[in-house]
Amino acid sequence: MIRRSLPRAFSAASALKGIPLNGATINENVKAAKYAVRGAVLERSMELQRKMAAGEKLPFDTIVPCNIGNPHACLQVPLSFHREVLSLCISPNLATDHPHVFKKDVIERAKHYAAGLTGGVGAYTNSQGIPAVREEIAAFIAERDGHPARADRIYLTNGASEGVRILLTCLLRSGGKKDGLLTPIPQYPLYSASLTLLGGSLVPYHLNEGASWGVEMDNLRKTLAAARADGTEVRGIAVINPGNPTGNILAEEQIKDIIKMAVDEKLVVLADEVYQANIWKKGASFSSFKKVACDMGYTGEDGDDRLQLVSFHSTSKGYFGECGLRGGYMEVHGIGAEVRAELYKLASLSLCSNTIGQLATGIMINPPKPGDPSFKTFQKERDDILSSLERRSIMVHKALNELEGITCNEADGALYAFPRIRLSDKAKRAAEAKGVPADEYYCLKILDQSGIVLVPGSGFGQEEGTLHFRTTFLPAEETMHETLKVMAKAHEKFMDEHRD
Amino acid sequence: MIRRSLPRAFSAASALKGIPLNGATINENVKAAKYAVRGAVLERSMELQRKMAAGEKLPFDTIVPCNIGNPHACLQVPLSFHREVLSLCISPNLATDHPHVFKKDVIERAKHYAAGLTGGVGAYTNSQGIPAVREEIAAFIAERDGHPARADRIYLTNGASEGVRILLTCLLRSGGKKDGLLTPIPQYPLYSASLTLLGGSLVPYHLNEGASWGVEMDNLRKTLAAARADGTEVRGIAVINPGNPTGNILAEEQIKDIIKMAVDEKLVVLADEVYQANIWKKGASFSSFKKVACDMGYTGEDGDDRLQLVSFHSTSKGYFGECGLRGGYMEVHGIGAEVRAELYKLASLSLCSNTIGQLATGIMINPPKPGDPSFKTFQKERDDILSSLERRSIMVHKALNELEGITCNEADGALYAFPRIRLSDKAKRAAEAKGVPADEYYCLKILDQSGIVLVPGSGFGQEEGTLHFRTTFLPAEETMHETLKVMAKAHEKFMDEHRD
Repeated sequence: MIRRSLPRAFSAASALKGIPLNGATINENVKAAKYAVRGAVLERSMELQRKMAAGEKLPFDTIVPCNIGNPHACLQVPLSFHREVLSLCISPNLATDHPHVFKKDVIERAKHYAAGLTGGVGAYTNSQGIPAVREEIAAFIAERDGHPARADRIYLTNGASEGVRILLTCLLRSGGKKDGLLTPIPQYPLYSASLTLLGGSLVPYHLNEGASWGVEMDNLRKTLAAARADGTEVRGIAVINPGNPTGNILAEEQIKDIIKMAVDEKLVVLADEVYQANIWKKGASFSSFKKVACDMGYTGEDGDDRLQLVSFHSTSKGYFGECGLRGGYMEVHGIGAEVRAELYKLASLSLCSNTIGQLATGIMINPPKPGDPSFKTFQKERDDILSSLERRSIMVHKALNELEGITCNEADGALYAFPRIRLSDKAKRAAEAKGVPADEYYCLKILDQSGIVLVPGSGFGQEEGTLHFRTTFLPAEETMHETLKVMAKAHEKFMDEHRD
Repeated sequence: MIRRSLPRAFSAASALKGIPLNGATINENVKAAKYAVRGAVLERSMELQRKMAAGEKLPFDTIVPCNIGNPHACLQVPLSFHREVLSLCISPNLATDHPHVFKKDVIERAKHYAAGLTGGVGAYTNSQGIPAVREEIAAFIAERDGHPARADRIYLTNGASEGVRILLTCLLRSGGKKDGLLTPIPQYPLYSASLTLLGGSLVPYHLNEGASWGVEMDNLRKTLAAARADGTEVRGIAVINPGNPTGNILAEEQIKDIIKMAVDEKLVVLADEVYQANIWKKGASFSSFKKVACDMGYTGEDGDDRLQLVSFHSTSKGYFGECGLRGGYMEVHGIGAEVRAELYKLASLSLCSNTIGQLATGIMINPPKPGDPSFKTFQKERDDILSSLERRSIMVHKALNELEGITCNEADGALYAFPRIRLSDKAKRAAEAKGVPADEYYCLKILDQSGIVLVPGSGFGQEEGTLHFRTTFLPAEETMHETLKVMAKAHEKFMDEHRD
């Protein structure tokens, strides 16, 4: 029996005073954090989507989401082998009840995982992740780098983002210390947002747009010295390689210089290497920080913490593009047992990362081998995706460079273009009148005209006085010519309407 | 070409000075956080597991993990319908290539999800979660409570733990404020650990073991007043219902009292309701905080923030037990648009929760209905699991109460027993000599003798001067008699060896 008590009359005053959780009383760091990839421009695109659904006539028929590296949403087809293995891990009886449905290597892989997974995918795993998968990852790293890797140094995470969060939580101390992280500008805003959330300082080091977005060591050292002189305890350096949003790939010499500096200056290196399988530049190849570190003799074995390095990888990018499964890992190097135990504890607090993402990570780095029943299909699917991405990268960069006021470095890798735009004073004044940054104003105008969702450069950071935007080159190849034409038209219209 | 540079000699001094990330320089909140469910006793069990694997002879043949509510690891069988739907969502072509494999309702459900999921399970979803799943959850809540629920108030999360983390991140302010959360004692240590991590204060309110672990309002009010007088800004109250580790179910009158107090005292209510489908007490039923709040007239509509309530649910418990998939959601009530936007932003920072966990959540709260092709199988599987859990709950409580020095309240619900143990002075002295709490000493001794992994009461909090442990009742029913016999023998041995 429910006794209905009459609630006290609701007064406007209570909205202003004493509400534990409102815009005025929420953790100020949460409010201050910015994440532009899903910011104002995306909000506007969702509004336009609703208008279209309600039958409103707009200058375009479809929203083209170029704001986020989400390949499957742009109709990239998933790889058959790994999806089949995952299906079978979820419903093992499919193979026994219907023996003809799955290829032999699919069944074997699923059995291999099942053997290492008491209770199957429905059970919590070891907090660090399924041992069998960590062994696979260690073997992948060892083969990639030509140096040993250890399963007990690997932590499986829900995407790479969770790894970055856990690591920064350890690195940035509470209690009023002004701990900072050297962060590239432009950067993927996970770093800026996480730093704000955790009360840390972003110490920006600018990449050189004039030199293919390379890292300039002189500038980096000056930035570090200035931040330290200013009282910031700089404790680490984030490097995104291949770069997001820049697409730059670091040469081994550059990586070596960064490692030397990290050793000299006692900085933990956070190597965000989630685009390691997206290499477009002819002749270019990816070298991991781990490889270069080991080449230099920094073994990372217990007792050798001269270099402290944490590398991140993810199922979301590469030719995999499995964003939704939230798979990823971090490998720690030169991080002692005591801190590893703390990382384990933090992972334990959320019990474990999701098992399907864990298994997807294992399959990603251990795909079918030549001779396996699934190899030919896998090879074709992978090569089709990678070659199409490469063609689209070239198309997008070429088309952007042909537009008035736009220049864009070629991308060596990753999934983005980050062109510079030069806007007229009239455009800048119009943005100011609207109270938005000029690049955001541009992106909103392009969206309203074309349905294409870009991200303003201010969301990634950019050199004072310059303006950029980031776009993926993920729209399906069949539609890419049309998308680029629509973009060009919207851009021309914008330029015409904003001539000084 | 790699230039090998000789690294500087490693000196012991560098381990002590200037290492950015070691036990001395890590964020102190990380170090201070405790999570007993995977603490020292589990560590010891893993060591014993390794010894067994290496052929060492131990007093038992198998480790029995009663430390964690991980049903599938204890061989609980997953439900067929939802696993089949998930397999099909991962590999949609299975239904077209092999039309006889899946039942009609399985195919329909998978198609329903696919229609709302551009790019399938491999794409990032809306940061808050797949709209179609949130609609299903809203319908489930509305039917459960008899009050409306809205999809835009629901946030899908990687298990309930992530929801708690996100909410506490908003609630606990940085910058030196001493924000606190009323937390039941005993509690699930996610709360204590999260509070420590975020720099908040745990304000403990003791549940009354003598009254079936009920909440005592007088005590609660006194605790709140004392904490406030002491300078803590108490901003919320956590309630775990059904209780973990206590198994207590709150009556509607108790919930009403807590809600009234939260309204009067401006506290956000965190209602941890992950065990809502685990009700064992005859005649008992689960009432959600949301239902009681709506019964009382707190509509939670925009403009009505008199009561601020956030409820958590998970795929990990109930008869589902899908821990590894990391599915869950939180529903916010009386939380204004500005804070909802911040919650959305925090969710965006990790892009979205994993899609398989999201879909599992949808299937969990929207299982087959009478008449559906999968209904009979579903019904049998569900009822078998629930009735077996109920029998095991009774068996475990009865067996524990028969042991010397142990008393244990009947559990109304959830998956645990939380018995009180009375240890001799000799046992307490032995623990002190080892430098561990007496309850941990007991659990370690039981483990070494029986292979059964318990969690010491100190990990959950307990009234000063009392000792407890938590055990699940999840070991398979076939083995339960034997497990309880082994436990009884180990307990007797412990008591005999520690008589004063």
